[in-house]
Amino acid sequence: MEKKELFVREEILGSNKKIAAEIRRKLEQESILTINFLSSPGSGKTALLERIAETLKPRHQMAVIEGDIETERDAERIRQKGVPAWQITTGGACHLEAKMVARLISEIPAETHFLFIENIGNLVCPASYDLGESLRCVLLSAPEGDDKPKKYPKAFATADCLIITKSDLIPFVPFDLERAGNEALDINPDLRIFVTSALQPRGIAELVRYFIESRVNMIQRHA
Amino acid sequence: MEKKELFVREEILGSNKKIAAEIRRKLEQESILTINFLSSPGSGKTALLERIAETLKPRHQMAVIEGDIETERDAERIRQKGVPAWQITTGGACHLEAKMVARLISEIPAETHFLFIENIGNLVCPASYDLGESLRCVLLSAPEGDDKPKKYPKAFATADCLIITKSDLIPFVPFDLERAGNEALDINPDLRIFVTSALQPRGIAELVRYFIESRVNMIQRHA
Repeated sequence: MEKKELFVREEILGSNKKIAAEIRRKLEQESILTINFLSSPGSGKTALLERIAETLKPRHQMAVIEGDIETERDAERIRQKGVPAWQITTGGACHLEAKMVARLISEIPAETHFLFIENIGNLVCPASYDLGESLRCVLLSAPEGDDKPKKYPKAFATADCLIITKSDLIPFVPFDLERAGNEALDINPDLRIFVTSALQPRGIAELVRYFIESRVNMIQRHA
Repeated sequence: MEKKELFVREEILGSNKKIAAEIRRKLEQESILTINFLSSPGSGKTALLERIAETLKPRHQMAVIEGDIETERDAERIRQKGVPAWQITTGGACHLEAKMVARLISEIPAETHFLFIENIGNLVCPASYDLGESLRCVLLSAPEGDDKPKKYPKAFATADCLIITKSDLIPFVPFDLERAGNEALDINPDLRIFVTSALQPRGIAELVRYFIESRVNMIQRHA
């Protein structure tokens, strides 16, 4: 990267960090657990959110901020599940930034328990931008291959949990679950790993339990 | 994007464009057709290159420049096919730039017919950087979903051909081939579309024929 570009980028990241800290402080105070979903395009973020919505619904309120370069499609899919959703279309930009999330914060209903942010489909750039989340989850779909953690290390290094998606496809693709998990743990030994399929569905209850426990821990931390 | 960032980015894109034009001029003069492969992580760029190598090998010389954030894995896979390959590891940067390619140009054997550049797995940022290629191909794997062209339009708008990969998985995923093709053609009516599977393999011969014809056309254009 060129020097001038590096300098401007450092400035932007610094200002992003401050805004993110403020978002996190505000949302955690309101007992809202915010979860940032990072992944490649098409690894199943929206489908997983649809399953999570069905599982959380009877007892918990959730809301979703959808990030996309173009189209309102993902927010519409989430709204069809009866979940409030806001679409951010970046019109070209390859990641969400905290200031984009900050503009929406006042619209999040006070009774929300979980705020999910679906980032732009991009396993590289979003990893550098804190959005004020309390939990960061990186998704890796089985057909993407088990060699991705070491090729795209930052997303895995900065995440709290790894969600393997589309596990129903494992019989049809060269994907070694153990290798994928071990590569990710080499980069980040604290990573919690969940194996899911949105189509089957499989592994959703365990994942939702983790979110609920994380929220309880967050509330206790602030008590 | 902030004003300062935009300004620096315009400068970089301008300088990239000049270097790219110089690369294209030089390689086309040497009758080398350069092909830039763009896609999400894990959509099967390297596996497709392995199949292309097997199909081209008896009569044509190819070489590969591999772009990755970390690891030499992809270049090693290509070298195992007896194809010269150079790995560019960007150490974090989300796309290749023309200047990275320019540094390697003198090492490309003179007898090369096809130079493939496998870009960083990222459907967003690489679309903005001309690498001096004569053909740009965007890959979309079936499990990524048929709704990707309109969500990530720039890669599809700037490509010459769309390669649907992992078509062997179509029976197991919600992917409508016609919808994917129509969305892509809405964005770019001149797009050539190929349907392939590296595992089966399927559609490789048609794709290779397109590359060979494109090279013949390029040579005639310069004659």
